[in-house]
Amino acid sequence: MTLRLSVDMMGGDRAPESVLAGAALACEKHPKLHMHLFGDMSVVEPLLRTHLTLAQRTTLHHTDEVVTNNMPPLTALRTLKRSSMRLAIEAVADGLCHAVVSAGNTGAYMALSKIILKTLDGVDRPAIATTLPTLKGPCLALDLGANIDCSVENLVQFSVMGEVLAQRILGKPKPTVALLNVGSEELKGHAVIQQAAQKLRAIKFLNFIGFAEGDDLTCGNVDVIVTDGFTGNVALKTIEGCARLIMKTAHQNFMKSWRGKLGYLIARPAFKAIQHAMDPRLHNGAAFLGLRGNAIKSHGGADAVAFANAIDVALRMMSEKQSRLIGDEIEMKLKEI
Amino acid sequence: MTLRLSVDMMGGDRAPESVLAGAALACEKHPKLHMHLFGDMSVVEPLLRTHLTLAQRTTLHHTDEVVTNNMPPLTALRTLKRSSMRLAIEAVADGLCHAVVSAGNTGAYMALSKIILKTLDGVDRPAIATTLPTLKGPCLALDLGANIDCSVENLVQFSVMGEVLAQRILGKPKPTVALLNVGSEELKGHAVIQQAAQKLRAIKFLNFIGFAEGDDLTCGNVDVIVTDGFTGNVALKTIEGCARLIMKTAHQNFMKSWRGKLGYLIARPAFKAIQHAMDPRLHNGAAFLGLRGNAIKSHGGADAVAFANAIDVALRMMSEKQSRLIGDEIEMKLKEI
Repeated sequence: MTLRLSVDMMGGDRAPESVLAGAALACEKHPKLHMHLFGDMSVVEPLLRTHLTLAQRTTLHHTDEVVTNNMPPLTALRTLKRSSMRLAIEAVADGLCHAVVSAGNTGAYMALSKIILKTLDGVDRPAIATTLPTLKGPCLALDLGANIDCSVENLVQFSVMGEVLAQRILGKPKPTVALLNVGSEELKGHAVIQQAAQKLRAIKFLNFIGFAEGDDLTCGNVDVIVTDGFTGNVALKTIEGCARLIMKTAHQNFMKSWRGKLGYLIARPAFKAIQHAMDPRLHNGAAFLGLRGNAIKSHGGADAVAFANAIDVALRMMSEKQSRLIGDEIEMKLKEI
Repeated sequence: MTLRLSVDMMGGDRAPESVLAGAALACEKHPKLHMHLFGDMSVVEPLLRTHLTLAQRTTLHHTDEVVTNNMPPLTALRTLKRSSMRLAIEAVADGLCHAVVSAGNTGAYMALSKIILKTLDGVDRPAIATTLPTLKGPCLALDLGANIDCSVENLVQFSVMGEVLAQRILGKPKPTVALLNVGSEELKGHAVIQQAAQKLRAIKFLNFIGFAEGDDLTCGNVDVIVTDGFTGNVALKTIEGCARLIMKTAHQNFMKSWRGKLGYLIARPAFKAIQHAMDPRLHNGAAFLGLRGNAIKSHGGADAVAFANAIDVALRMMSEKQSRLIGDEIEMKLKEI
């Protein structure tokens, strides 16, 4: 079956060049992929000449309108009826594509996705979810930036949504779920988190284990970690920054002495493996969870490799069966609570 | 001049053993240090026999009462009048000691410090501050867990407090100050952070540069990063967890092949240097900023090396002149705004 992917060519700091190069990489990797590219064709078409494989498996959709990074979501929603972002999302709503990927303005992308794709029954607000590498396999974390202020109900819904996604994509029948907090003791945290924990403890089907702390995001003791979009976004970017700091510190230390340089040369494959494991580009791509359709957000600063990885995430989610199952289960479980 | 340090022997997951061992390490390192140890002497005294240097430079203060990790701050405040934590703080208020260090219950320690040491004029709530290693020298971050919910005024005061501390301990005459947020664009974040930014922009003496993101905590582009205690605590622990993940992943990768092992052996000094730079124990110790007296918080899980490092932090803050200057400047600047 051909997988049809919709791509917003104009979103992201390095669009459309990196987006196009990323789409081209993904096309080389996935022979069954067909792309629908939305954007300013006066810029995109000339670039496409150097990407022959992509050019052969692409349908182009021209539009002049672009959602910029600084544009308030409401402006993107109300004034731009033909932005590349909006048209790319509509392609999923219309059934033309199985999923959409954009590296553009997160707030606008989420607002448009919510309006165009609609939320699942029982979901008040979608959340941004991604898997993080840990010492013991991936940990699913949400929300990573869609909802700056979260209510008790939001956190409860995110927990159920996260549980279902972890079952499907991590293959864990009974994933553990925890709320991110400043301590694991029951009394810790603010009122919203306290009340959310109380409600989650009462949900029988959920394997809710209480509170997780910042270091649990990478230690692998919890399968699903739920938080508000403010904290989640800061934590995610903190991990990226920390990884960069350590890799650079390591490199500087090895290059300081001849022993370091020699050891580096000999152990080069091991260094490459670590760089690969920690490369934030290979963890790029987060799902908007809770929508009637697959929308994937790429980091705004994504280069070609990173954008191609976001497409990989989309492919993992976009099989029709898979995404319908996830949606159905979320709706069923939210009805139960 | 002899520096007199007050130590809560009963606080922390590994107390009193690790606390005592840490105090002993610090004593070996700092010949002018005299310790006042507060705690259950039936446990502490026998342990002291193996630490002769410390034993010679120590005054013991017995008490049976202990603030446990799970105790609500109000209980510690109202029912325990002779806890080791309280007596250790009182030693600073009474002028017996120049600073106090505890690895115990953070909430109780902060509440007791606030009541006993009192806050500086203009400071509504003290904050927990520490320096983080970055690619370009240390970054001062606060609040790291004292205040779960923060008002606009709290964030503004933290910014001024952070500026003064950075001037004194980082030696930066005009440190840059930023608020931690989910994006650097002016429109990002919730109402409190938006209003705080507006007020900070209006403070003429402050080098406020707007919003920082999670990765700025470790990239070194900002001298002082201000946030609420919830986000700050999660970010701090996220850094710790991430560092652990990378160091362990690295070790596993090197041990997988003979080339890795050989390279590791040859470049051992470089590895050790990196481990040292990233060792969370050597970054242990955070200051309660905004009080009329020096109170330093050690991580609850601190071992001897980590606790000794918290004492180092105390020593940096505790010269009478230094801490009075910091306090005076904070009061003066808060009056100006």
